Amino acid sequence: MMSLAPDIPFLDRLADVADRVTLPLFRSGLPALAKSSTRGDFDPVTEADKDAETAMRALIAATFPSHGIAGEEFPDVNPEASHVWHLDPIDGTRQFITGVPLWATMAGLVIERSPTLGIVSQPFTGERFYGAPGRALYRRGQDEHPLRTRDCADASAASLFSTTPHLFFGDKADRFERLRRTVRLVRYGIDCYAFVLLAMGFVDVVVETGLDDHDIVPLVPIIEAAGGVVTDWQGRRAAGGGDVVAVGDRRLLDAVLRNLGA
Amino acid sequence: MMSLAPDIPFLDRLADVADRVTLPLFRSGLPALAKSSTRGDFDPVTEADKDAETAMRALIAATFPSHGIAGEEFPDVNPEASHVWHLDPIDGTRQFITGVPLWATMAGLVIERSPTLGIVSQPFTGERFYGAPGRALYRRGQDEHPLRTRDCADASAASLFSTTPHLFFGDKADRFERLRRTVRLVRYGIDCYAFVLLAMGFVDVVVETGLDDHDIVPLVPIIEAAGGVVTDWQGRRAAGGGDVVAVGDRRLLDAVLRNLGA
Repeated sequence: MMSLAPDIPFLDRLADVADRVTLPLFRSGLPALAKSSTRGDFDPVTEADKDAETAMRALIAATFPSHGIAGEEFPDVNPEASHVWHLDPIDGTRQFITGVPLWATMAGLVIERSPTLGIVSQPFTGERFYGAPGRALYRRGQDEHPLRTRDCADASAASLFSTTPHLFFGDKADRFERLRRTVRLVRYGIDCYAFVLLAMGFVDVVVETGLDDHDIVPLVPIIEAAGGVVTDWQGRRAAGGGDVVAVGDRRLLDAVLRNLGA
Repeated sequence: MMSLAPDIPFLDRLADVADRVTLPLFRSGLPALAKSSTRGDFDPVTEADKDAETAMRALIAATFPSHGIAGEEFPDVNPEASHVWHLDPIDGTRQFITGVPLWATMAGLVIERSPTLGIVSQPFTGERFYGAPGRALYRRGQDEHPLRTRDCADASAASLFSTTPHLFFGDKADRFERLRRTVRLVRYGIDCYAFVLLAMGFVDVVVETGLDDHDIVPLVPIIEAAGGVVTDWQGRRAAGGGDVVAVGDRRLLDAVLRNLGA
């Protein structure tokens, strides 16, 4: 079945082909291989990562042959197209290899340089999170409802998530520490899943550094349609990756950037 | 139905009465209340915590009236009995209030001062982990299999989990940092779930500080029957809580204690 334009059912098809690869390999004892990374000294990549991206690329090429594709594991295809997909077959590879069921497959579509569609799929918990213009959705089995960030105007009431404090070095470590001391609760360790918890209204601030574009592009449409804001640490657009901050309540942004910004 | 002796089916009945309380309240927007704690500056407790413990206490009192009960939320009952239950209705309350589906209900039975039976139940993922003498089990739907830690003799190949580095102060922070620099991968943020990942063979070392007895007693029978070892940072028995370390491979213990021990 040919989609005329990319839509949420197509996002589901993308996630379906990835889930069929990743879920059987999760906790299967598959050996992990080290690969070079800007995100620390150990960033394993698995067969699941490569095979899931291959499956998603094939579906996009068959359905929308004019679209570009920027993935994690293979070279870009047609990156100057008006529509470019950004694929992260397993966001949270460290979670994947340590058995933590909060890694996810992510896919996002950038149209004319603007992140417009996004999906996050966690097949072990059976959860999917969707973002489209004006529409952010949660689905798990029969449970389907809109995603909505929560009100939180004061940093002193906020919950802050980040992958690990050990990725912040030098001046960035000082700035993160400054922010950390202003919030109510800090948690580490769950990668992209923290951003979808923000879109669900359970987390107020997510701060990361050293992200690639595929780490954030799929999340931007979800967070924005849920009522949140994604920027870099200086308040500029963050779709290129790098230093990223997301807030569920726009009123928090100034206070957060005052700590994180140079 | 009266059990003659506590067994795995009774552990399931305990988890069932807790799950019926906790799962409907998870992500329900229930307001969290601060409570005092030795584990940081914000340790919320919810209705779920209290109601789940009340339900487990009632089931124990009805089934094994001579047994003692030490819970998190209410005063001890008959703590000098030969059989004493240790209950943690929601381990990982911070995860519970931030929507992270890796908190768990834990119950453990100490017989003549020795942790003998234990269960960890995570109702959102539908997972249960059981420990009994010579028997450690995983169950999720139709998937039931023994738990077994993995071989990992060298710290340089090990994955280390801990709740957060911010709970280690002064000399303990230095010691944890020393250990952290010897291992391959470090992750934070998932509380008791890290210990069951160790029992499953996906994590090699878990280090915590400031645990209460109910935080560790239910885990000891699971980890030990799966092939792992639980001690304090000096290598002594850890069933009282405090500074705790677990390793999946006994050969790792010396190297880990050399870094953590005074």
